[in-house]
Amino acid sequence: MSLLGKRVTERIKPSVITEMMILVKKHKAISLTAGEPSSEMYPVDLLRETIERALRDPGILSYYPLSTGITELREWIAEWMKEDGLLPQSYGGENVIMTNGSQDGLNLVSEAFIEPGDTVLVENPTYPEALLAFSKEGARFVSVPVDKDGPIIEEMERVLSQNKVKLFYTIVNFQNPSGCVTTEERKKRILELASRYGFLIIEDDPYRYLRYEGKHEGSYIGLAQDEDRVIYLGSFSKIIAPGIRCGYMIVPSKITSQMGELVLATKLSLPAFLQRATWELLRNIDMKAHLAKLADTYRTRRDALHRFLQGKAVPQGMTYDLPKGGFFIWARVPWLKDCFDFAKFAVLEEKVGVVPGAAFYPDVLTADRSTLRLSFAKVPPETAEEAGERLGRALARYKETG
Amino acid sequence: MSLLGKRVTERIKPSVITEMMILVKKHKAISLTAGEPSSEMYPVDLLRETIERALRDPGILSYYPLSTGITELREWIAEWMKEDGLLPQSYGGENVIMTNGSQDGLNLVSEAFIEPGDTVLVENPTYPEALLAFSKEGARFVSVPVDKDGPIIEEMERVLSQNKVKLFYTIVNFQNPSGCVTTEERKKRILELASRYGFLIIEDDPYRYLRYEGKHEGSYIGLAQDEDRVIYLGSFSKIIAPGIRCGYMIVPSKITSQMGELVLATKLSLPAFLQRATWELLRNIDMKAHLAKLADTYRTRRDALHRFLQGKAVPQGMTYDLPKGGFFIWARVPWLKDCFDFAKFAVLEEKVGVVPGAAFYPDVLTADRSTLRLSFAKVPPETAEEAGERLGRALARYKETG
Repeated sequence: MSLLGKRVTERIKPSVITEMMILVKKHKAISLTAGEPSSEMYPVDLLRETIERALRDPGILSYYPLSTGITELREWIAEWMKEDGLLPQSYGGENVIMTNGSQDGLNLVSEAFIEPGDTVLVENPTYPEALLAFSKEGARFVSVPVDKDGPIIEEMERVLSQNKVKLFYTIVNFQNPSGCVTTEERKKRILELASRYGFLIIEDDPYRYLRYEGKHEGSYIGLAQDEDRVIYLGSFSKIIAPGIRCGYMIVPSKITSQMGELVLATKLSLPAFLQRATWELLRNIDMKAHLAKLADTYRTRRDALHRFLQGKAVPQGMTYDLPKGGFFIWARVPWLKDCFDFAKFAVLEEKVGVVPGAAFYPDVLTADRSTLRLSFAKVPPETAEEAGERLGRALARYKETG
Repeated sequence: MSLLGKRVTERIKPSVITEMMILVKKHKAISLTAGEPSSEMYPVDLLRETIERALRDPGILSYYPLSTGITELREWIAEWMKEDGLLPQSYGGENVIMTNGSQDGLNLVSEAFIEPGDTVLVENPTYPEALLAFSKEGARFVSVPVDKDGPIIEEMERVLSQNKVKLFYTIVNFQNPSGCVTTEERKKRILELASRYGFLIIEDDPYRYLRYEGKHEGSYIGLAQDEDRVIYLGSFSKIIAPGIRCGYMIVPSKITSQMGELVLATKLSLPAFLQRATWELLRNIDMKAHLAKLADTYRTRRDALHRFLQGKAVPQGMTYDLPKGGFFIWARVPWLKDCFDFAKFAVLEEKVGVVPGAAFYPDVLTADRSTLRLSFAKVPPETAEEAGERLGRALARYKETG
């Protein structure tokens, strides 16, 4: 349609992760694709109860006059984060904006800050749907490689000295896809760089509560205190359920009203009854026990997949570091030349779904096409053996045909 | 924050309607402000039941792989609209995109089509939140006045001959705020203009099913058949409840995949369980009886407010045409010089809330500042007398102080 603007004709493109998820579903393959929790872990009964309670007040089904979300949930989130040492004491519910999952938060950040041609610094590799939200508004990307402790400072300094960066987008815990955790030490160095070069840090943190070993690191937003250098994105998708689409962003006080107006222009408000039910759920769930159960389950799944990858895929040349949390094993198969082609082959021929790792690189030309992202979240131990076998067989067969 | 872009620093501004709603709530005034249905009319029990049923399948709380929404609801909507003669037979569920209320649909249209400086033709007066969504992307506005049959064709021709218009935004039934209904005759003329001048029609239709007398007119999208000239926006906010945030847009086949990618970039997807519950609700409700009940209720409210306005406000100089549907009486008080100031006075001094009509004009300089929008939707007959009295008294007192 000739009237379409650049956003849809030039800037956005299909999501590789979504395409793989659909392909996997269609071929009834074992899924190592989605970065989504296992549905047995959703607190469905409690959610049903709290929705039922929320609906006893039909007024909650009217338009909610605050575009930023219901006050009680926003205050709960601020308190929870403060108790956890994540948020400076000066922050409160008024700094919290509810979002339709973190993607909505990413989009709002992009819309609020990005003008065509602005430069966004991202980790290499990183979450491709974040790139979509930024490129939709015409961002150009520069990138910094990560090691197990997060972005490599020397590389970051080099990029910053050569580019006027407006935003730095980072996934701080069990990064998607690499699994790295940015240490407090690195965060402090990067906050200094943010002050020196005048950029804003977008701290995306959906996996924080899925830590299977080791201790939490301090957050950028907590370390920055009142410097107004950080926007934090959180989500209940991984610890409650993605389908409630309940994310949140924490923004500095001086931009809360402008961000609220932006939310209003894009959607008026989100379903308030669902926020009320989520609030009740959060108050009533034994969060510590719930998170411990999640950690136990996913740790077991990680270890099971690890065991069978060691047995079947590593002999085919696969290498990886075991992540301390999150959902993903970030694997490399050095002889693999085209992970996109292999991912299709694996679904069609061996009915096992993986995400081609090259999709996670901001620059398609220098993307490492020997990488694969393997999610263990939806693979119970009893399926992991079969998944490992299928993947090993797919690699062996693909290598032969190669 | 110096890094903010033009969208928030220049293009968007606070919503007058929201500010009035908050002011009314704060002062516990009788509300003639919100364009929202009355909460007694929400089918809450049925919604509770269908949500409960939807949640029996925990998988529905996972990420939904189609950003455009669940297939069964989209197909239901297409069939329903076709049975009603609203949609060409060639359209189906694949043309339907679920949105977080119509505002989300407006925003998606704006993001897909508007480049900074593009011209959007709007009705004068029109819904200000639509202006927000378009101006967020840098649209400039030209306008066409409406009479009771919709946009005035001669005026429209004049504007089109002088401006390169990309989109025409129109509320076709019981227009917000004027209450006008665009006749089929006018729609045909305007479709011809759309072909001749190469613009797209955004047909916003939230009030269609709130008709209290007379017969339905054909829709632009139905009349255009396969011409790909129309995007239709519908919503369950007025007939089910705003708080489910369940709107939909109908787009031509050739742009469905691009629009789906745009939705994905902005939010991945909406809560699928809520769409499933809405679908079940729609299948189980006796829609004909439900709509008849809504029409009876709101007709009675319209007539009650009308009666008391005749008694108390018309003697103060107020004039209006009684609308045949929707929620609003669009009033003029010729001696009133500043409806913004009066609206505040009425809440603070007489505890009755109205929306200043000047907020509905795209051009602030030529806005008619003697206008008021009065919503009768949330005012039961037993309150209408008091509302009429307070409004009459507010006008009388304001005139004196004037």
